[in-house]
Amino acid sequence: MLASWVPVPADSHFPLNNLPYGVFSTATSPLPRPGVAIGDSVLDLAAVQRAGLLSGPVLSAANNCFQQPVLNAFMALGRPAWAEARATLLRLLSADEGVLRDDVALRSRLLLPRSEVRMHLPAAIGDYTDFYASREHATNIGIMFRGRENALQPNWLHLPVGYHGRASSIVVSGTDVRRPRGQVVRGTAQPPVPSFEASAALDYELEVGCFIGPGNELGCPIPVERAAEHIFGYVLVNDWSARDIQRWEYVPLGPFTSKNFATSISPWIVTPDALEPFACSAPPQDDPQPLPYLRQRPGERTNYDIQLEVAIQPSSSSSGCSTEGGGGGSAGDAGGESSGQPTVVTRSNLRTMYWTLPQMIAHHTAGGCPLRPGDLLASGTLSCEGPLGAGCLQEATWGGSRPVRLGDGSERTFLLDGDTVVMSGYCQGEGYRVGFGECRGMVLPAAEL
Amino acid sequence: MLASWVPVPADSHFPLNNLPYGVFSTATSPLPRPGVAIGDSVLDLAAVQRAGLLSGPVLSAANNCFQQPVLNAFMALGRPAWAEARATLLRLLSADEGVLRDDVALRSRLLLPRSEVRMHLPAAIGDYTDFYASREHATNIGIMFRGRENALQPNWLHLPVGYHGRASSIVVSGTDVRRPRGQVVRGTAQPPVPSFEASAALDYELEVGCFIGPGNELGCPIPVERAAEHIFGYVLVNDWSARDIQRWEYVPLGPFTSKNFATSISPWIVTPDALEPFACSAPPQDDPQPLPYLRQRPGERTNYDIQLEVAIQPSSSSSGCSTEGGGGGSAGDAGGESSGQPTVVTRSNLRTMYWTLPQMIAHHTAGGCPLRPGDLLASGTLSCEGPLGAGCLQEATWGGSRPVRLGDGSERTFLLDGDTVVMSGYCQGEGYRVGFGECRGMVLPAAEL
Repeated sequence: MLASWVPVPADSHFPLNNLPYGVFSTATSPLPRPGVAIGDSVLDLAAVQRAGLLSGPVLSAANNCFQQPVLNAFMALGRPAWAEARATLLRLLSADEGVLRDDVALRSRLLLPRSEVRMHLPAAIGDYTDFYASREHATNIGIMFRGRENALQPNWLHLPVGYHGRASSIVVSGTDVRRPRGQVVRGTAQPPVPSFEASAALDYELEVGCFIGPGNELGCPIPVERAAEHIFGYVLVNDWSARDIQRWEYVPLGPFTSKNFATSISPWIVTPDALEPFACSAPPQDDPQPLPYLRQRPGERTNYDIQLEVAIQPSSSSSGCSTEGGGGGSAGDAGGESSGQPTVVTRSNLRTMYWTLPQMIAHHTAGGCPLRPGDLLASGTLSCEGPLGAGCLQEATWGGSRPVRLGDGSERTFLLDGDTVVMSGYCQGEGYRVGFGECRGMVLPAAEL
Repeated sequence: MLASWVPVPADSHFPLNNLPYGVFSTATSPLPRPGVAIGDSVLDLAAVQRAGLLSGPVLSAANNCFQQPVLNAFMALGRPAWAEARATLLRLLSADEGVLRDDVALRSRLLLPRSEVRMHLPAAIGDYTDFYASREHATNIGIMFRGRENALQPNWLHLPVGYHGRASSIVVSGTDVRRPRGQVVRGTAQPPVPSFEASAALDYELEVGCFIGPGNELGCPIPVERAAEHIFGYVLVNDWSARDIQRWEYVPLGPFTSKNFATSISPWIVTPDALEPFACSAPPQDDPQPLPYLRQRPGERTNYDIQLEVAIQPSSSSSGCSTEGGGGGSAGDAGGESSGQPTVVTRSNLRTMYWTLPQMIAHHTAGGCPLRPGDLLASGTLSCEGPLGAGCLQEATWGGSRPVRLGDGSERTFLLDGDTVVMSGYCQGEGYRVGFGECRGMVLPAAEL
C-alpha cells in the first residue's frame, strides 16, 4: 500500500494506490465538480486546479478540464493527461509531500470528508451499450430457455453480443429505483393475453462497465490492439431488469421497457492504472478462435481479478421488525443477520469474463460506429462458477423456481419493494484493496396509476 | 397557400405554411445556428432574435434560445414558445408585413439563399429509439422468416415493438455513408462459420422520426393523451441496415453493428402545426384493442397523410457512362432515365402506420424511462400496399430474390457502392405542399483494412 498523509482505514477501497475519479457536490457548495477519493476523504480537483497544483504541461494546456460538472473533457484528453494527473496526485497525497499536508488552510479547502459529499453521475453519457460477455451467464440463460444441448446461441462464441441501452435512465448509486409497470403475460392462454401491471419479476444484474476516453470518428474502427487506450476507467453497473416484461417484449428486437427504467452505476471511476497490478488474462478463446479483428495475443492481460459481490438488504419494515437498518453500511456476509441486514446473494469475479472490454470496443466500432468520450459500455451480467456465482436472480433462483433465503429468514424469487441491492467490488493487494465502493439502490413501489 | 413576400416556387416543400426548423452555417459565418426554411431561403433565427424581432412574452424571457448550435433549448420550451415563434414568423414573412420586406439591409443579413447554407444536425440527440410500427412491414418480414400463418409475432398487435438505437452515428442528409464491415455467414455449413467482410446486403429503411420537446422525469410516464404535447416535430429517417450482418448478430438481443454505423435524417424539422391540416387517424385498432395505457380515442387524428418516396440514384461511373449526375436534383420518377438519374423504388405514406407516435411515447415511458428534449424516436420501416409499397430493399426484393430494376437498366438486390439513396416526403395541400425536403446519402466503398 502506498503511504499517504491522508488517513486511510485498513479495509478502505480508496488507498493512495486507487485514486478513482468522480463528481461530487456539498451542501455549502452545491455545484457538481470532479474529485478523487482517498480514504474517507475527497480531493476537490476543481479547487486543486484553481490552486495551480496541476502544473504539468498537458493539464496546464487544459486548465479548465476540471472546472466542469462532468468528467467528459478530462476523459477526452487521453492517456498523457491521465498519466500526468495521476503522477501529480500521487505526489501531492504521498506521505512525504508537504505542499498540502502542511498547509492547513489550503488542505481544508481542497480535502473534504467523503461523508459530507453528494455524488453525481461522473459523465454526460452520450450512449450506453450493454454486452452479454459472461459465458457462464449466457450458458445458464440458454439452458433455461433452450436446454443444455443448445445453451449457447450459434453466434455467441464468435462475437461479443451486445445491444444499445438507454442513456437517459442511468442513475448514480444511492438513487431509488421505482418498480416499473409494463406489459406482462400471466397464465398460459393461447394466444397470449397481456396485461399492464407492476413487474413481479424485478431483478438486478451484476456488471462492470467502462467509460470511454478518446473516441473515434464515424467510419473509423478502433482496432482491438488499440482499444485499451480508449478506456478511461471502470465502474460497477446494476442493469435492473424486469424479467416478466422482458419475456413478452424482447422478440424480435431485444429488451426495451424491461431495462430502460433504470441502470445504476457506482460513483467512483477506477482507472486502468490503479487496476494494472490485478490484470489477468481472459479464459482461452481457442474453440473457436475469434476472427482476426477480435483476436488478442494469447495470455494478454485485459481482464482484471475483481472480486464482486451483491447483497440484498431488506427494509426493516418488510420483515416485520423494528430494528434499525436500511441505511448505510457495507454489504455484510450471509447467514444469521437480524432483519434489515444485507445478505450476500452473489459472489463473482471479472476475471472469468469470456469477451474482454477491448474486444467489445473493437466489435462495437468494427462497422464504423463512433464512440464518444463519456460513453458507457457494460459487460452484461457477470456470473461464474460456485454456489453464489449467479450474477442475477433469474439465474440464482433458476427462473424463480428456487428461492434464495436471506439472513432474516425471508425468501426471494425476485426483488421486493423496500429491498436495497448493494453491489461492491475490489481487488485484493498485499495489505490493501483497490475497490469500487458501492453501487446501491432501493426498490420503491410502483407508482400509483 | 399562405402568401409570403419571400418568393416560393410552386412545387416548393417550404411555403409559408411550413416554416420548418433546422440548424445551418455559411462559409462566411461558420458557426451553426437555428433557422427556418422559406422557399429557397433560410431565415437566420439567431439574427432575428438578436434584432429583437421575437418580442413575444415567452421568447423574450428565453432570449438566448436561438443563440446556440442546436435546437434543444427551444425544443425544451414547449408549445407556448413554439406557438409564439410560429405566430411571429408567420407575421414577419407574410406578404403584407413590411418590417423585413422593406428593410433591404436587415433582410440581407437575416435571409440567406438556401443554396449557400450547409445544414447540420438540428439537435444534440441524447437517445435514439427505433420502432417497428408498420403492420405491412412487420407482416412482410414475418412471412419471409416464419411463413404467412405466423407472420406477426404474438406481441406485435399488443405493443409498439421498439429498441434503442445508436445516437452517435446519426448524421444529417448529405453525409456519405461508408459500407460497414462485419460478421456475416456465407454458405450453409452447420455449425455456421462466420467471416468478417464488407456487407453485401446494404439496405435503406424509409422511416419518419419525431424530435421530443419537453421530456419527463425518471419514474413519471407520459400518458398517451398527453404525448402529442411532447412532440416538437418530424423528420425523414433512413435507418441504413446491413441485412447479412443483422441476420447473424440479432439473436437474442436485437440489431447492433448492422444498424449502428449510420442513420441519416433530413435537416428540416416539420412541426405539428404545419402538418395539422394533413392529420388523419391511424388504421383501426380493434382486434385486439390496445391496453388502456395505449388506447387513443377512436378516429383521433395522430397520423399524417405524408406521401413518402425513396429513389436510388446510381453513380454515373457505376453504370459505365460518363453523363452528369450523382450530384444535386430532387428525386425523379421511374422508367427510362439515363444513367445517374434517380429511380423511385418506394412509394409509401405515414397514414397507414399502425402504432402512432403518441402510442410509442406512452409505451416508451410506461415504466418510467425519461425522454429528454432532442431525443429522436423513429417509426421503423414504413411499408404500405401497392406495387412500390415496400419501405426497404429487403422487402422490395423479397430478401434479395427478386431484384428491382433501375432506370438505367441495372438491377439491385441491395445497394451498390456509389448509389445515392434519396428520400423525400410531402403533404399535398390545395395548390401547395408542406414538405420535408430530402434525406440523402451516398454509399462509399468499405474502408481498406
